Amino acid sequence: MTYCLAAIVNDGMVFMSDSRTNAGIDQLGVYSKMHVFDEVEGRFFALLSAGNLATTQAVVAQIRRDLREDADQSLATCKRLRDACEYIGVLSQAVQEKYTAQSESDTFNAEANFIFGGQILGQETKLFQIYPQGNFVEPTALAPFLQIGEQKYGKPILDRIIRSETSLETVALCGLVSMDSTIRSNAGVGPPIELLIYRNDTPTLALQMSFDEGDPYWLKIRATWEQNLRDAFANLPALDMPNPTFRVVDS
Amino acid sequence: MTYCLAAIVNDGMVFMSDSRTNAGIDQLGVYSKMHVFDEVEGRFFALLSAGNLATTQAVVAQIRRDLREDADQSLATCKRLRDACEYIGVLSQAVQEKYTAQSESDTFNAEANFIFGGQILGQETKLFQIYPQGNFVEPTALAPFLQIGEQKYGKPILDRIIRSETSLETVALCGLVSMDSTIRSNAGVGPPIELLIYRNDTPTLALQMSFDEGDPYWLKIRATWEQNLRDAFANLPALDMPNPTFRVVDS
Repeated sequence: MTYCLAAIVNDGMVFMSDSRTNAGIDQLGVYSKMHVFDEVEGRFFALLSAGNLATTQAVVAQIRRDLREDADQSLATCKRLRDACEYIGVLSQAVQEKYTAQSESDTFNAEANFIFGGQILGQETKLFQIYPQGNFVEPTALAPFLQIGEQKYGKPILDRIIRSETSLETVALCGLVSMDSTIRSNAGVGPPIELLIYRNDTPTLALQMSFDEGDPYWLKIRATWEQNLRDAFANLPALDMPNPTFRVVDS
Repeated sequence: MTYCLAAIVNDGMVFMSDSRTNAGIDQLGVYSKMHVFDEVEGRFFALLSAGNLATTQAVVAQIRRDLREDADQSLATCKRLRDACEYIGVLSQAVQEKYTAQSESDTFNAEANFIFGGQILGQETKLFQIYPQGNFVEPTALAPFLQIGEQKYGKPILDRIIRSETSLETVALCGLVSMDSTIRSNAGVGPPIELLIYRNDTPTLALQMSFDEGDPYWLKIRATWEQNLRDAFANLPALDMPNPTFRVVDS
């Protein structure tokens, strides 16, 4: 399992991913699901991946090869972010079709989901989710974030906190809290947690951080959130048993 | 969609359910998913249902009919809670098989999930989840709650709060908070929220409450939780950008 999220706010974008992959609980691995492409001057791209690991690795390898070999179509040649999404969608489809055709299993699933965002200087910063079918969507301004993988446990806090005017630091913090809730509920999601903060118009200055299981800040966030949540819960108005809608069954 | 949960703690049990059913967003309905059986002296049972509405209604109707008609097998005749689970599992299987056989659609799904709990006086209070296959499980003492339906959004707060020693009132409050998170994230889950509190050895005194969308206490809980969560989040240690694991990409 995997949990990745990204948000686009007025100041820029935040990307976050866990690093656990598994094919059954006895085969856990640690792989980065965050891929940064900033070798072309004036261009910054980040890709988060979920789904079949062979598919996502093949797609990322092809993107890097196309850049290295100056291919006709690559992240260096695309004119708009949407062109880059089309390009990645086509790559993803081709990889999935190839390995699905090779498989003799009915249950083999080569699908992959991606979150892709970036900026071509002079244009707006953009964020997309690219589906296994190769099509893609942008998030809405009312809920300016995207999630792939194990997304439900960590969604409520994003819904409450992230707005377009939220600061990048607050979005990052909210992402860590969302990641914490997910890690507690699904053993298939785990550290290190990778975090990338991109401020608009600064393609060479993206901040990338990684939090290991024992990272002091990560531990502090987890412990403080646990305590603050307990306090938040303890300070709720008590359930008033004889309230107006109260009734005794069969009384 | 549906969200139902129940917990068993040292003092008794709490059951909670939403009331929205839908077959597409243009066909929303309100049905109770909480069914109480307390007509047999010294016996108390509660059933929460999720899944195919025709299946769950047929199962509940048959349970009531067997009680009314003094059938050989019923909630009045079962010797242990596990016998009652077997009985409900068999009913559920029979209903599912009947309607699946009648259907000509490949995508028709007659499955239903149940949470079933109760007490036969003189025995322990027990709580079970009954699967569509008719088999069933009890929750663990370490996480003494069960959920059916749309369960992920509301699970983190249950994981944090509910233990065997938690009071019935606190469990009920925690259930309401869990329901609130779920309702915010899934439009297929909605009020009225039904709540049942069963204190051990009091089969005629179960408390049943219902919270409509506009119920003052429900509104107060939602607003207070929203504010308390925001405060809990605001009081987290700020993300310290130049922390030890910080690095600038490609610097």
